[in-house]
Amino acid sequence: MADLIYGINAVREGLRSTRRRPLALFVQREPQPPRLQQLLKEAEKAGVKVGRRERRDLDRLAGHGHHQGAVLEVEPFAYLTLEDLLERWRVSKEPAFFLVLDGITDPHNLGAILRSADGAGCQGVIVAKDRACPVTAVVDKVSAGALEHVPLCQVTNLARTLDTLRKEGVWVYGLAGEADAASLYATDLRGDLALVVGSEGAGLRPNTRSHCDLLLAIPMYGQVPSLNASVATSVALFEALRQRRC
Amino acid sequence: MADLIYGINAVREGLRSTRRRPLALFVQREPQPPRLQQLLKEAEKAGVKVGRRERRDLDRLAGHGHHQGAVLEVEPFAYLTLEDLLERWRVSKEPAFFLVLDGITDPHNLGAILRSADGAGCQGVIVAKDRACPVTAVVDKVSAGALEHVPLCQVTNLARTLDTLRKEGVWVYGLAGEADAASLYATDLRGDLALVVGSEGAGLRPNTRSHCDLLLAIPMYGQVPSLNASVATSVALFEALRQRRC
Repeated sequence: MADLIYGINAVREGLRSTRRRPLALFVQREPQPPRLQQLLKEAEKAGVKVGRRERRDLDRLAGHGHHQGAVLEVEPFAYLTLEDLLERWRVSKEPAFFLVLDGITDPHNLGAILRSADGAGCQGVIVAKDRACPVTAVVDKVSAGALEHVPLCQVTNLARTLDTLRKEGVWVYGLAGEADAASLYATDLRGDLALVVGSEGAGLRPNTRSHCDLLLAIPMYGQVPSLNASVATSVALFEALRQRRC
Repeated sequence: MADLIYGINAVREGLRSTRRRPLALFVQREPQPPRLQQLLKEAEKAGVKVGRRERRDLDRLAGHGHHQGAVLEVEPFAYLTLEDLLERWRVSKEPAFFLVLDGITDPHNLGAILRSADGAGCQGVIVAKDRACPVTAVVDKVSAGALEHVPLCQVTNLARTLDTLRKEGVWVYGLAGEADAASLYATDLRGDLALVVGSEGAGLRPNTRSHCDLLLAIPMYGQVPSLNASVATSVALFEALRQRRC
């Protein structure tokens, strides 16, 4: 099945992408402001077929109304399998350093997290199929190119995946906000490590938590009890980097 | 002078704000999709005066075209003065922990940074007037309420402000990406500290750099040479927190 990209800027990027072939552009019948007309010209130039639809049909296609009158179908993103990812790790002979995302749904967060995972030297990012943000042009753009470099793996059963990692000798640590979790800074993050982070709102699912070896928390000294999801993930990734390499 | 909020969601939040009084709503004359009509109803309910304008007049008012047909004037945000901020610090008898922003222009980044500054226990955030993102409803929302808690100070001359901080005995460290900068993790971040971070694209201005005691870099082990601005700032803030409190 094709992936969808929506919003004028994202669709324009999608039409220009060299990595994921654009398949079909759908635009609202009216109004057609200059920026939409420009997309139509770009699609024509790129040889992408175009359909004009009522706005409510685009709402249905996108699943919501935040598409600015433009929805683009593109080739699905090619994820690695877990087996591929583990095989790459074994070949590398480096200590494992994986990031597991349990329900990051905002494309800006996913993009920023991929950029941080690249910067911290992660060997791969694992996402759950049922609660993952699809890899859109927004993700691609916010990742600043990291999407092209960080191995990204999609799994259908996150709990089973965590068990597989543990059987391979990898320590599975979940980032959580509870007061009784271990401090990130008091925990040894060297060796074979998979860091698991939850969704923007609800955090780790109970079933994910119960498959972690340990729950970690970032100490907080302010009034707001949590950090932005991509920030929290990055703070944990770079603390692991500090312990492992600095 | 009033601040401006634009975009349908941000304007809706602005109309509902209890912290900054909405003064006047301007909407495009046509088209008026349901979401704009809804804003008009909300404005009427809130007793906010409404003006209908041509789209090009809204472009001129907002300074760009990304307003979705809705621009709201609100009371200006009340910043602290530098003197107020320094006085609060002296009274606290705590080691200084300030964050200085040299040109963060994206409201999502500013909001996430304020949230992190709150979480890391910063005593105040200082922004340069000429290159600052205004405090909009988006900043407020992304900060998750931190905007209400972190003292925010606006200064007209950033270089002079850094000199003032240094005269007060505060170490002024700039976050930069150069290979010859000191590693964040090899630098003592305890004691009286002001961390200076630059803009999303260009980083610290040369004139800002030359007023720093030391330039710091986050070690990077990936393909993309830098992190998202709010992520980099947060990684540095929490490394300072780790050294100071953990």
